[in-house]
Amino acid sequence: MSPVLPPRVIAFDGDDTLWHNETLFSMTQERFRAILRSHLSLDLADLDARLLATERKNLAVYGYGIKGFVLSMVETAIEVTDGRTPASDITAILSVGRAMLEHPVELIEGAREVLESLRARDHELWLITKGDLFDQESKIARSGLEPLFDRIEIVSEKDEGTYRRLLDRHGISADEFAMVGNTLRSDVLPVINLGARAFHVPYQITWAHEHVEGDLPDGALVLDALTELPVRLQAMGLSRSVRHDQP
Amino acid sequence: MSPVLPPRVIAFDGDDTLWHNETLFSMTQERFRAILRSHLSLDLADLDARLLATERKNLAVYGYGIKGFVLSMVETAIEVTDGRTPASDITAILSVGRAMLEHPVELIEGAREVLESLRARDHELWLITKGDLFDQESKIARSGLEPLFDRIEIVSEKDEGTYRRLLDRHGISADEFAMVGNTLRSDVLPVINLGARAFHVPYQITWAHEHVEGDLPDGALVLDALTELPVRLQAMGLSRSVRHDQP
Repeated sequence: MSPVLPPRVIAFDGDDTLWHNETLFSMTQERFRAILRSHLSLDLADLDARLLATERKNLAVYGYGIKGFVLSMVETAIEVTDGRTPASDITAILSVGRAMLEHPVELIEGAREVLESLRARDHELWLITKGDLFDQESKIARSGLEPLFDRIEIVSEKDEGTYRRLLDRHGISADEFAMVGNTLRSDVLPVINLGARAFHVPYQITWAHEHVEGDLPDGALVLDALTELPVRLQAMGLSRSVRHDQP
Repeated sequence: MSPVLPPRVIAFDGDDTLWHNETLFSMTQERFRAILRSHLSLDLADLDARLLATERKNLAVYGYGIKGFVLSMVETAIEVTDGRTPASDITAILSVGRAMLEHPVELIEGAREVLESLRARDHELWLITKGDLFDQESKIARSGLEPLFDRIEIVSEKDEGTYRRLLDRHGISADEFAMVGNTLRSDVLPVINLGARAFHVPYQITWAHEHVEGDLPDGALVLDALTELPVRLQAMGLSRSVRHDQP
């Protein structure tokens, strides 16, 4: 008869959950097409498919992140032009990559307010983000959200093993924990498999590699927007601060 | 009158302290020269200097690691040839980069035995390594040394702030802590500045960026080889296991 209480620890994904990221990749991919357009017989959908195939092939060696993506763009450019890419195109690709790394971090609407309101209700807040260590640290710093988190974890992959290690390391049980993120594959499914809760906040675009088919599993809730989170958490039971007031 | 005791926590650098790394960069740089040799009027020392300058310029955007190094090689190749690099040379650079990422991890002589002997003496062992998260995790796994460490930290920079955060987070005081590594800049000086101890084990080559001039600071000891570490630690006082036996 244990009542469903809101989870004590709320962990957030970064890219496309707290700040925009996939739009930056899409914008870069547009530029990549524009660079190649003049020497290319391939149509644009085929070019996108070739780039995705190269990225996927390279994931095992490069891991996630912008630098690996730039290397994959260079490789794809050379391949699809049968080696006729001029050096000026390669230079252009390097500079769109650099622009991605230096691009301002644009927060998802309401991200700061949601974090602040959950802190005010005594939730412990974590950030669990995947990708390139240097780039993620830089984005976290530029986001201005760093002081709102009790714990920040940058990991190379977000699978069940990763989440289990993090919970074990910090002595958190699955029923105390909820993850909030935009991808089913990395933020929702592995967390539900551990018996914890997950909030799925879909982003306008999902990277093809992260896309999974199927229904939302039991224990996961879908939100139309991040700003719904505080109300949905409260609806799970008495809010933590109310419980504090009424011992 | 407190006697000098051996530090309880011994932290190791990874690259060029436990496994060879700089030799791999040197080997790759050799290949880079060979790729460019045919279209280059520059002499090789100038080429090395241009590459280093590009790497340094890019550190603030790319951080440390092989992927950033590969991007810097591509950029340098295009620059030093005034844009005349053929795409086949860029492909060759990408493939030497990939070879670096897939290169077997070769341990420094005696690395495993040193770690095992310190564990047997109840030291807590940490690995604190800098660079690309994905590549470092892969190297740690391939090194076979992972099970010997109580704690593994992959960081983007090894400065005083980083070491202070790690010690604070795990409740370790400076006099309980010693760092073992090959670079004065990242492994020795920041640690000594915190009041902890450091063992400098120079490697046969130091990356120019990590090179610092000057004497070894007080509190740092230099070792000719990693294998000297157990004896030097013991010489600091009674070994921990002896202290355990004689309460």
